[in-house]
Amino acid sequence: MKKIKIKKDFWPFVESVIIVGTESDNKKPNFFTCSWHSRVNQKPPQWGITIDYRRYSLNCIKRNMTFSINYPGKELVKVTDYCGIYSGKKVDKGSLFTIFNGTLNGAPMIEECIVNIELEVKRIIELESDCLIIGEIINTYSDERYIVDNRLDFEKADSFFLTCPDFNYHTIHGHIGKAWKIGKKLD
Amino acid sequence: MKKIKIKKDFWPFVESVIIVGTESDNKKPNFFTCSWHSRVNQKPPQWGITIDYRRYSLNCIKRNMTFSINYPGKELVKVTDYCGIYSGKKVDKGSLFTIFNGTLNGAPMIEECIVNIELEVKRIIELESDCLIIGEIINTYSDERYIVDNRLDFEKADSFFLTCPDFNYHTIHGHIGKAWKIGKKLD
Repeated sequence: MKKIKIKKDFWPFVESVIIVGTESDNKKPNFFTCSWHSRVNQKPPQWGITIDYRRYSLNCIKRNMTFSINYPGKELVKVTDYCGIYSGKKVDKGSLFTIFNGTLNGAPMIEECIVNIELEVKRIIELESDCLIIGEIINTYSDERYIVDNRLDFEKADSFFLTCPDFNYHTIHGHIGKAWKIGKKLD
Repeated sequence: MKKIKIKKDFWPFVESVIIVGTESDNKKPNFFTCSWHSRVNQKPPQWGITIDYRRYSLNCIKRNMTFSINYPGKELVKVTDYCGIYSGKKVDKGSLFTIFNGTLNGAPMIEECIVNIELEVKRIIELESDCLIIGEIINTYSDERYIVDNRLDFEKADSFFLTCPDFNYHTIHGHIGKAWKIGKKLD
């Protein structure tokens, strides 16, 4: 094999797609799509999400010190892409979903999503172009339809993910759309 | 939809699988499999990896202040799983691969992998059960066979990923093995 240098700014080949929920200063739910995130701690369960400093939602999260993570199923691929393209400064993304709240303030969740997690912010790590927010999971919700033998079933959930550098959405059963394109216009 | 509380310790549905490279104190290459990681900063390009405090590799990374990220293709699924099951304290994982070095000391890379990235540690964030290491990408390497029109081609690379909570490895073309099982024994 002959190794060659390529563009160093490499993105993970596969990224799990989530919709992060927060609340604006006028108490309106707002959502943005995020693919740079990961579990970061086992006990207690914590999750890290990366947010560009220019994002509208960053100040909302910093003010509330809470946020939610929502896992969309493949039927939400278009609206998920939309939430990644357009800013909450300009469009009302709260009106796209049926919202429910758990025990935390400022962490609205999306009923149409497979899994919903409410988190309390534990650390804010100010990197150069992006801010890394670490939240601790307070509660996780799902729907009975996805539970088999008291466990969440991956096949029933049929979550989707983003592949890079081609920027396509797939489930494990196939391609379902082009990222930053399929959600440019909602029907 | 009727939302119910489920076990709060939820793992991302889909996780990109990487092999992290480091060097032990006797200058031997060591590798471990990691699925809790993400890009965390756009400019300069940075990546975060989570490591359990009990891992052998953590002290190696802290001492060298460098590491590598290696993306295995599907033909390496068995050895990738092996590198996640067994500790470098007990087995010599450096001997499993053809190693090459870039410009950094302490960041050995795997020739058999699709993409190799060398990183300098910028931040060490000590969480409760795990340590979050943030590294800046210094160089990224690949092989001409994966490049189409000067760009890395996802289809040619045919990388694999882990699905949770069922713990299976897949490419976008199908299931390729059971995690923490397929690599228990190498041939």
